[in-house]
Amino acid sequence: MSRPTVAGVARAAGVSVASVSRVLNGLPATEEMVGRVQRAVEELGYVPDARARSLKVGRTFQLTLAVADVGNPVYVTMMRAVEEVVSAAGYRLVVTTTGPDVADEVALVRGMARGYADGLVISPLRVDDDLIKSIRECDVPVVVAGNVPASAGVDTIRANSPKGMLLAVEHLLQKGRRRIAFLNGPRDTVPGTARAKGFAEAMKANGLRPVAEVEAADFTFAAGREAGRELLSGLGAGSNRADARGVAPGDRGRAGVAGGPAAKRRRSAPDAVIAANDLLAVGLMHELAAVGLEVPRDVAVVGMDDSELAEQSFPPLTSVNLGSAERGRRAAELLLARIDDDTRTPRRIVVQPTLSVRRSTP
Amino acid sequence: MSRPTVAGVARAAGVSVASVSRVLNGLPATEEMVGRVQRAVEELGYVPDARARSLKVGRTFQLTLAVADVGNPVYVTMMRAVEEVVSAAGYRLVVTTTGPDVADEVALVRGMARGYADGLVISPLRVDDDLIKSIRECDVPVVVAGNVPASAGVDTIRANSPKGMLLAVEHLLQKGRRRIAFLNGPRDTVPGTARAKGFAEAMKANGLRPVAEVEAADFTFAAGREAGRELLSGLGAGSNRADARGVAPGDRGRAGVAGGPAAKRRRSAPDAVIAANDLLAVGLMHELAAVGLEVPRDVAVVGMDDSELAEQSFPPLTSVNLGSAERGRRAAELLLARIDDDTRTPRRIVVQPTLSVRRSTP
Repeated sequence: MSRPTVAGVARAAGVSVASVSRVLNGLPATEEMVGRVQRAVEELGYVPDARARSLKVGRTFQLTLAVADVGNPVYVTMMRAVEEVVSAAGYRLVVTTTGPDVADEVALVRGMARGYADGLVISPLRVDDDLIKSIRECDVPVVVAGNVPASAGVDTIRANSPKGMLLAVEHLLQKGRRRIAFLNGPRDTVPGTARAKGFAEAMKANGLRPVAEVEAADFTFAAGREAGRELLSGLGAGSNRADARGVAPGDRGRAGVAGGPAAKRRRSAPDAVIAANDLLAVGLMHELAAVGLEVPRDVAVVGMDDSELAEQSFPPLTSVNLGSAERGRRAAELLLARIDDDTRTPRRIVVQPTLSVRRSTP
Repeated sequence: MSRPTVAGVARAAGVSVASVSRVLNGLPATEEMVGRVQRAVEELGYVPDARARSLKVGRTFQLTLAVADVGNPVYVTMMRAVEEVVSAAGYRLVVTTTGPDVADEVALVRGMARGYADGLVISPLRVDDDLIKSIRECDVPVVVAGNVPASAGVDTIRANSPKGMLLAVEHLLQKGRRRIAFLNGPRDTVPGTARAKGFAEAMKANGLRPVAEVEAADFTFAAGREAGRELLSGLGAGSNRADARGVAPGDRGRAGVAGGPAAKRRRSAPDAVIAANDLLAVGLMHELAAVGLEVPRDVAVVGMDDSELAEQSFPPLTSVNLGSAERGRRAAELLLARIDDDTRTPRRIVVQPTLSVRRSTP
């Protein structure tokens, strides 16, 4: 008699292969299901040792999600969505971090050859030729949640940052705000590039020129505070409320517009800021409060990602929802489909944004 | 010639086994290191296929961290600390979630038998006999970040909630607040039980009686808002500022103290609330703002965990630091030591708390 397989267990138990996998993989299952599978495993003498078994059937029933920073709440949303889809299919999701360096992303993809997972969803912050090469050569199916060239020949799912920026700019315009500044993350990242381009296009389409643009060192709260300070000191943004606080605009910080007269600085103070993600937006809001500016009365703030933090911040943050839950869900579906059939034509899906309006805009 | 091993590669490359593992496992390493290891791998014809290799040497160089909710920022802090220690030792950390049910925690520990990781750090929200049994029987070393009985015979690392509660209560007393309420998470969880007991002891030690205690359905922001509403409507907490808003205390919501006169409700309105974690505290602060109460002027708020959210919230949240970073670091060290020597006597380590004072208290 040949060595019993998962398929054999499934037949004996009268359940699906996915259900057997769920039980063996320690995923939630009904007591009845666990009982049926365990009886079949005992009857057949099936050994659920993955190290031995994966050599035969090439399946680990684990999938990996790799993100740059597990502390960024946008990845939490994505992670929850991926997990829901893959666990329903009998897979356990494991999450790992790459950090912000592309070399570490490449190393991670190459490390997939070690064989502890059947597939990978990667959301790369930076993309270069080495990363694309490692994805093309990867031993297991890969789905990219982000923007890589079509020539990479890989399933991708990405956000529409330009459309998202348009929603943010037009919302602010409707609320009467025209002196709009932009707080971006690092421009040498995939989202940083896309959002800078989208912001420029959205402003141009509405006949506006940005009053200021600053670039944070990272997509984090701390970097948002630092860039927020730079933005405020450079442009005398405090002047909106200077009278109420008895401080002349020129006293508020270093004059950032070299040689510009005080009147010009006042005119150029932003009445709204769009930030490239929610962590940056919340960092900025702390700096606005520190100089006595009220959100949204003095300065409206729009974030991007519509993460859990947008709801938790105070005031709650108006934020562009770039579909992180839908991207996670569809990335998981693409990965499962690719595992089933590695010959299918790569798909390139774009998820459309929406705007979640909260109290940080008027 | 025998099949080449990691140790052989390390000897040929003139580097440590941990360094070889780092490179093969896709963890960050210098270019020079990667070059040396790759040349040795090629010279020896070493096949870094983990599925085959782990059968021989019993090592996957992966470690698992299992947490209840990857969206809770306290786990982010712990995760970062665990990752730093294990990646320095050549291991990749993968994180997986169990959710709040003990049955899923048990299933996860049993699933470790599938062999994709060399060890597990688990931070269980709920503990029962099944979970302890599954940990005792687990095929790979387990460290519990949480409170399980000594009879479980497992390495544990835990916080000192009672001491943390004492820090919170005494800080509020020093600031002149004596009408202290408690917003707990579910009492049938490990932290919920410990924090309820700690709060009761800390109040008693200072001759105080709590003005109110409510229990949130979960340790989440949404549950914190709901329990916050219950707390405020039940006790007329809004009465501290009722005059300024022209609203009579009785109009502010359902009278929660059955039959109590208005004067009693006013007296029992809290001037401080201690929440069992930061998410609950931030949820409560949103409800305080919704009824026109200012933090800390009207009600001081203290959270627990001192997570990234405490710094990001507005006002920034005074929070008991229960040492999640140190617990993560030491859990990782215990796990690595246990992997090296499974015969060592189980350690039970308690990490002492500190208080991070921010602007949510006077």
